[in-house]
Amino acid sequence: MKVVFIGAGNLATRLSYEMHRKGFEIVQLFSQSKESAEALANCLQCDYTTSLQEVRNDAELYIFAVKDSVLEEVLQAMPHNKGLWVHTAGSIPMDIFAPYVSRFGVFYPLQTFSKNRECDFSSIPFFIEAHTAQDCSLLKKAASELSTKVIDASSEQRKHLHLAAVFANNFANHMFAIASRLVEEQGLPFDALQPLIAETAEKIRILHPLQAQTGPAMRYDENVMNNHLSLLNDENLREIYRLLSKSIYDHSK
Amino acid sequence: MKVVFIGAGNLATRLSYEMHRKGFEIVQLFSQSKESAEALANCLQCDYTTSLQEVRNDAELYIFAVKDSVLEEVLQAMPHNKGLWVHTAGSIPMDIFAPYVSRFGVFYPLQTFSKNRECDFSSIPFFIEAHTAQDCSLLKKAASELSTKVIDASSEQRKHLHLAAVFANNFANHMFAIASRLVEEQGLPFDALQPLIAETAEKIRILHPLQAQTGPAMRYDENVMNNHLSLLNDENLREIYRLLSKSIYDHSK
Repeated sequence: MKVVFIGAGNLATRLSYEMHRKGFEIVQLFSQSKESAEALANCLQCDYTTSLQEVRNDAELYIFAVKDSVLEEVLQAMPHNKGLWVHTAGSIPMDIFAPYVSRFGVFYPLQTFSKNRECDFSSIPFFIEAHTAQDCSLLKKAASELSTKVIDASSEQRKHLHLAAVFANNFANHMFAIASRLVEEQGLPFDALQPLIAETAEKIRILHPLQAQTGPAMRYDENVMNNHLSLLNDENLREIYRLLSKSIYDHSK
Repeated sequence: MKVVFIGAGNLATRLSYEMHRKGFEIVQLFSQSKESAEALANCLQCDYTTSLQEVRNDAELYIFAVKDSVLEEVLQAMPHNKGLWVHTAGSIPMDIFAPYVSRFGVFYPLQTFSKNRECDFSSIPFFIEAHTAQDCSLLKKAASELSTKVIDASSEQRKHLHLAAVFANNFANHMFAIASRLVEEQGLPFDALQPLIAETAEKIRILHPLQAQTGPAMRYDENVMNNHLSLLNDENLREIYRLLSKSIYDHSK
């Protein structure tokens, strides 16, 4: 299957590497940045362009992996063709493509990607949606080459998945950031928290997070909670502590 | 070194197993629950008692690994002796022992323990404090048999460590719980989030959490944030979303 990648960011990089490795024929790559395009195209052994007007029209699959905020603009400048156009974004409805082409869909891997960090695609869930049943099958077949978890999801479901990912990734990471600040303010090294953080994530492979919950908020131990609040000298952190403790207690019921 | 364990909960279980495995001579175990005491003592091949009056007085180290709320009561009922008494709690000052004995300290492994889950002690940081320099050395020597990370920490520092652990473990787990609720409300399986959660924890082994932070709050993308807020039908969750987004943005500056 001939594939064109539009974008050379974190997701485009990791996904195109993996598709290349799995034998997809990546024929061209577009990026506005010549440097990014050239570097990635070298690894993929494919052509690249920095002009959307020069994007080939003979590929079967066009993967738009660009920032949410520029996708519309990219689609407006993109020459139409008969290929299947998909994006890789959680929060963008599939219908963004409707004004431009008749074959379109979504190819959404639920993971956080870094350019320089390898990841094991086989366990990453791919959420698939397409305008026609035939293209949906085609996308599922492509996703199954990469991962064992291929799941149908509507645009509405995908929006909620993306929101869930903000809690599971962005907000959880912020809890680690606050914890690191508290430890470092005491002159202790942040990495002392790493085994605890690893175990926190590891535990929910076996237990649902509602079952894995422990701590003073869970048992509404006001004594410990008040002591903790008295240690926090930042009102924003106290407010976070109160609100999350209340929420943990409410969820436990 | 002869050791007596007071307690048979999660921490007592995992720590006593590990000390037994590493050649410490655990001579006796106390628990109020005959069932717990018997089960754990069997594994440790040691005696047990359910009466504090019957605790032996010839051990060198007494490890009090009981609930914070009952430690004082246990100490009051415990016959005095010449051994070194330590507790394993983050939030309890060392001086809780002062009215009872002259040799005392703290032996605090920063980790969340489950009775039935093995853990790799070698990477768990042990925070050590003792009333005398001599006992501090003794505790550090004992901790070094279990872990490569042995760190001095005052009672004040330890309180902050415990608070940091609430953020890193309890609150991060609650973010996973909320994410699971959002996914499950869409009829999708929670385990679709597991690769993302694993990567979230994994990433901060390489990057400090402040560097690892991504997402709409980080770049103050009001468009995405307002869309997310409109998907949350629970005012408590909206408040959590707002407060954490603001805090992420504030920390990014």
